[in-house]
Amino acid sequence: MALRVGVVGGGQLARMMVPAAVELGLDIRVLAEGPGMSAAIAATAEGDYHDAATVLGFAREVDVVTFDHEHVPQDVLRALVEAGVAVHPGPSALAVAQDKITMRRRLSALGLPVPDWAAVRDSGELADFLADHGGRAVVKTPRGGYDGKGVRVVSDAAEVDDWFAAVAEAAGDQALLVEELVPFTRELAQSVARRPSGQVVAWPLVETVQREGVCAEVLAPAPASAGRLADLAESIAVRIAEELDVTGVLAVELFQTADDRVLINELAMRPHNTGHWSIDGATTSQFEQHLRAVLDLPLGATGMHAPAAVMVNVLGGPEDGDLAARYPGALEAFPEAKYHFYGKAPRPGRKVGHVTVLGEDVDDVVYRARAAASHFDD
Amino acid sequence: MALRVGVVGGGQLARMMVPAAVELGLDIRVLAEGPGMSAAIAATAEGDYHDAATVLGFAREVDVVTFDHEHVPQDVLRALVEAGVAVHPGPSALAVAQDKITMRRRLSALGLPVPDWAAVRDSGELADFLADHGGRAVVKTPRGGYDGKGVRVVSDAAEVDDWFAAVAEAAGDQALLVEELVPFTRELAQSVARRPSGQVVAWPLVETVQREGVCAEVLAPAPASAGRLADLAESIAVRIAEELDVTGVLAVELFQTADDRVLINELAMRPHNTGHWSIDGATTSQFEQHLRAVLDLPLGATGMHAPAAVMVNVLGGPEDGDLAARYPGALEAFPEAKYHFYGKAPRPGRKVGHVTVLGEDVDDVVYRARAAASHFDD
Repeated sequence: MALRVGVVGGGQLARMMVPAAVELGLDIRVLAEGPGMSAAIAATAEGDYHDAATVLGFAREVDVVTFDHEHVPQDVLRALVEAGVAVHPGPSALAVAQDKITMRRRLSALGLPVPDWAAVRDSGELADFLADHGGRAVVKTPRGGYDGKGVRVVSDAAEVDDWFAAVAEAAGDQALLVEELVPFTRELAQSVARRPSGQVVAWPLVETVQREGVCAEVLAPAPASAGRLADLAESIAVRIAEELDVTGVLAVELFQTADDRVLINELAMRPHNTGHWSIDGATTSQFEQHLRAVLDLPLGATGMHAPAAVMVNVLGGPEDGDLAARYPGALEAFPEAKYHFYGKAPRPGRKVGHVTVLGEDVDDVVYRARAAASHFDD
Repeated sequence: MALRVGVVGGGQLARMMVPAAVELGLDIRVLAEGPGMSAAIAATAEGDYHDAATVLGFAREVDVVTFDHEHVPQDVLRALVEAGVAVHPGPSALAVAQDKITMRRRLSALGLPVPDWAAVRDSGELADFLADHGGRAVVKTPRGGYDGKGVRVVSDAAEVDDWFAAVAEAAGDQALLVEELVPFTRELAQSVARRPSGQVVAWPLVETVQREGVCAEVLAPAPASAGRLADLAESIAVRIAEELDVTGVLAVELFQTADDRVLINELAMRPHNTGHWSIDGATTSQFEQHLRAVLDLPLGATGMHAPAAVMVNVLGGPEDGDLAARYPGALEAFPEAKYHFYGKAPRPGRKVGHVTVLGEDVDDVVYRARAAASHFDD
């Protein structure tokens, strides 16, 4: 019988696991939030992932449970483990990805390079941090943020009064995360995959270009990164994976500073937008690798098919919502580009797809990838 | 709304279209013969493809109908076209793939290179052909043969008496196909894809190694084929696609003779085993290309990711039927190999999967692909 992988969540990351599962002969099943989700083709159940009984019922039909996102509550994750379900990544690892203050605390304790940070409970504590850090800083809600949501650059503590009000109203010992505004020259991302039995492999370090807090482009490998920088990034990601017992794919977002330090920005314990290039550009994609890793199968080679791969997100899509009408123009203009769409309705700012181009020269590849993706803009 | 492709037949070719459809954001729907088929993940209907009403009902939900195999009867195909359904490849093209005598007649009329052949209605006619061709020949049933079935090498007309008896009993003007036994040095295959609006693209010419009438290995590109041989093969396949109005993928199996002629062996109007290497080895796989072609979308680039790609079929699988138990050994030994399984139960001689390896040197790549695939034998 085929090995069965259950994915909680029906978004585009679950969707992009489907081709890898079909090719590898795995039986992939998705617990979707509802009908018409991005990963609908593999949805065998619909339900609320906050409900332990729902997730447990789904988990009984598969050999391992993994995730489209990091939002499954700890009590649900613990209930799965107690019921004997193989869960990868596990609850303890996910706890670090679920709360940015926990993440900063763990990484600091490990001596890993992070921006200066503090957990602040009121505007007075935030004002102190601002005073110590040149009057500007980044404030983040510890939970639920993504794609720039839950992140504000502030120069006055009053700018997050609404968030402090929510913190004061919430039960328990809550706080906001404040971090120094890192004077970075560029952003990088390092992905690795790790099996429960310990094997770890890394993909090449990539450069990521963010626009309005959202990943817009990824260049693989990161230009001018060979040697010390690539080694450093890989050693950081491997150390995090091992110390936090991460299983599956781990993506580490990094800042490179003007004085050539590398600081850890965010972690994701799942396939990540910064690794989508690997579908077309690497021997083993992050989606195939994630499936292999969570099943504790030997990991695949991570070499590239070409010297350069560039991925450009399709954000929003055309105003009339008709992505399909744009296919002929794009496919004809760039027959070498790989087009990916997620079965999501276009909406301003929404990630509805991406385009990857491979080639010899990164400048040429960037140009072609952007031009191909632009066919799906207005 | 996503473009909708309907595939009649739920075998492994339909299955291998699924990853390409998911990535390209297409809505793929399969009319499966029953439950548990290879392409079950995309099955939206089950039924008998011999029944026009069943196929028509399925076709009404999609933008174009295409096929996992060439066995849909002409009356069903014609009913679809009359109902206004886009059918690719169309009935006239498929008629040539469905009947080997029709195929030989059409190719001969086009002046294309084929083995000497005749349609023989009884053992007397066959004996005459044998006498004219050195006493040995290949006899084929015109319909329904595949993977060596329906093919016999004979030196005495009595060796196909059972087939002649069936011909005599059948209604209509039926016959067997007899062909000269071509003294070939190797077998080749040339795949092309063609859109309804006329665009045609070709993949590199490949060498195929058959064992017991079944495709065992494919080497891309065919060693020592650059130049005249590759040009000739491509021109033959393009001419067939254009003259027969083939839409989608066309695979042309060829004999290369000791005196360096090229003769057409078989045609397939669909993705074909000799093109499976393209999933991992080419910018655009035959499955993605087939979907683009039948939707009349611009075709993708067909260049290779590496100088050599070798595909080895997994035939039969382990005696105990437990393919999954073989994954750890194979994946660990050859992390660079791409493993594909079709969700089919192992059975002697059955194609249950394939393995593709890319690299610089074809001899090295052949070795590794064979060794990786052998992990799934007994």
